[in-house]
Amino acid sequence: MRHVVIMAGGLGTRFWPLSRTNRPKQLLPLWDGKTLLEHTVARLGSLVPRERLYIVTGRHLEQLIRAHLPELASGNLIVEPTARSTAPAIGLAATVIGRLDAEAIVGFFPSDAYVGRPDLLVEACNLGFEAADQGYIATIGIRPTHPETGYGYIRCETGGGAVLKAAAFVEKPDFERARSYVIDGRYLWNSGIFFFSLAKLKEEMGRQLPELARHMTEMDEAMASGDDARLQTVFEAITPISIDYGVMEGAQDVVVVPADLGWNDVGHWASLGEVLATDEQGNLCIGEVCPIDVEGSILINQGGKDKVLAVVGVEDLVVVDTDTATLVLPKKLAQRVREVVEWLKNSGREDLL
Amino acid sequence: MRHVVIMAGGLGTRFWPLSRTNRPKQLLPLWDGKTLLEHTVARLGSLVPRERLYIVTGRHLEQLIRAHLPELASGNLIVEPTARSTAPAIGLAATVIGRLDAEAIVGFFPSDAYVGRPDLLVEACNLGFEAADQGYIATIGIRPTHPETGYGYIRCETGGGAVLKAAAFVEKPDFERARSYVIDGRYLWNSGIFFFSLAKLKEEMGRQLPELARHMTEMDEAMASGDDARLQTVFEAITPISIDYGVMEGAQDVVVVPADLGWNDVGHWASLGEVLATDEQGNLCIGEVCPIDVEGSILINQGGKDKVLAVVGVEDLVVVDTDTATLVLPKKLAQRVREVVEWLKNSGREDLL
Repeated sequence: MRHVVIMAGGLGTRFWPLSRTNRPKQLLPLWDGKTLLEHTVARLGSLVPRERLYIVTGRHLEQLIRAHLPELASGNLIVEPTARSTAPAIGLAATVIGRLDAEAIVGFFPSDAYVGRPDLLVEACNLGFEAADQGYIATIGIRPTHPETGYGYIRCETGGGAVLKAAAFVEKPDFERARSYVIDGRYLWNSGIFFFSLAKLKEEMGRQLPELARHMTEMDEAMASGDDARLQTVFEAITPISIDYGVMEGAQDVVVVPADLGWNDVGHWASLGEVLATDEQGNLCIGEVCPIDVEGSILINQGGKDKVLAVVGVEDLVVVDTDTATLVLPKKLAQRVREVVEWLKNSGREDLL
Repeated sequence: MRHVVIMAGGLGTRFWPLSRTNRPKQLLPLWDGKTLLEHTVARLGSLVPRERLYIVTGRHLEQLIRAHLPELASGNLIVEPTARSTAPAIGLAATVIGRLDAEAIVGFFPSDAYVGRPDLLVEACNLGFEAADQGYIATIGIRPTHPETGYGYIRCETGGGAVLKAAAFVEKPDFERARSYVIDGRYLWNSGIFFFSLAKLKEEMGRQLPELARHMTEMDEAMASGDDARLQTVFEAITPISIDYGVMEGAQDVVVVPADLGWNDVGHWASLGEVLATDEQGNLCIGEVCPIDVEGSILINQGGKDKVLAVVGVEDLVVVDTDTATLVLPKKLAQRVREVVEWLKNSGREDLL
């Protein structure tokens, strides 16, 4: 049977100061009253019945996610004993699901992307599930709309059809390379969405990450005996590694479903201006904001009731004002919020992380 | 006898959001624990004994000024019944002083300028008082150090000596004109410091502002009879006009004392970076600030205890964060804070003014 797993363990410092350790991006209501996770759950709801939709997350987010998704059955929230990156998280989810359905076909999804065309996502997922059922590892590749340097790319083999063979996973490129990828036509954005049968996943893990495969067997035993302490110990012993690096890049039989989803991974403040409607000056203003001669900027004021954020004569700037921190940086440097996070760590200001 | 009058009625929106109607610039401690007014009082303290130093201000600032300057005798704080610009305020102060000393020579000073060389100010003031004693209207002219467009200029007649004849008062110029003034050499910045004998002031007022001269006589009568209500009525009937426009520009016998005072009228946020020490990157940071790759900027964080202001990768920017408002604008547009103030008025946000 088909299962859906939403990966919601991300730490998310990229939307600091709104995002914090205990409220990362996927739990922020960035474009309306709903969190990105809630949107993801709603978007994937038609793919599988509710009891086969799982969320994987860390302990620090467990309570908040239960509060946001009260309809989620207790067993469908899979809590990582500790953070070990995506391959171990997928191994944990696969083990949980495997105990219920050894024949499972599982789709893994990020919890925090924007999808402008959810109808096309459902179509693409159905193709992905079908390919996984035929023994492939399937992934969804987004046709690039611009030379984005913030995403990984997948090079596909040429050919027609709704599903292409993947030739290579490519790391985030520089701008020139990204431009050549867009012109080339064979390159798609890596959406981070994957479809496996459990059998295929175990086969690839056994081949590429034999240690993790052994840990999965041990996790299964711990779950069988209800031994949470052992599960914890086993999980903690796992070496962190991402599913892209640990499995996808070296996997055999990978196919790609190309799709135009109006997709955006919303990786930083600037990308918010790409997915949300801006005003005539290209500004995205949230909260009480007074922009005078401002263009292409992202101005967010959550700095307390009645506070005003006044900005004059700037272009392509990000200003985010909250009760406890204000961030100002040019849109093109939006990724550098990480340096602020580093500074806070080094300055003993973990209270703001 | 010599008297000093400090004009402290300014409304001061230019340091919004720190300055407010009830706490304008002269009552802000912009560079240390003391307000600009306190610095002005200290600077002029050696010119006259304490009982001949007066402060003119509006009702809304009366209590705050008394709190900041407890040593000021009650009668030395002259409160304007209502705001009517500088010429009427000077007329009021002159009337108060004239009732005590008909032969008075009075120096009028702004309350909110920066003076890097207070020793030279005292010298220049002594020359100004002497010239006023000889029947001139004297003013202090600051030798320009750069083509400043934010100040008025005084063109002097050529000639040597410590005191020059004034040829004309010139409005704030555009940049090209300001540059030509600096090259020309005959132009000095108008410091807004003036010295008159009361006799000369009355003569010029009688000639140029006869209505105000009549009102001064009526104010004198109201004071003689202790009739505060009448004083109020008389003052309210006065047409607002500045001393520059109403008297100085058309006055006869004006002389200028040129002086290199390290003077700055601190007219806006950007000028704060000119008078205060900046760090190696040319930044002026006040409060908990994290500047990363920032140059030439003014970053002020008064946004509540423990709040952090993080700024990345900008140049020549002003960011001022307070509990109730945050301002962001380029240094070169610092004057445009007025437009924010207008916006607040039009948006019914007088609570922030």
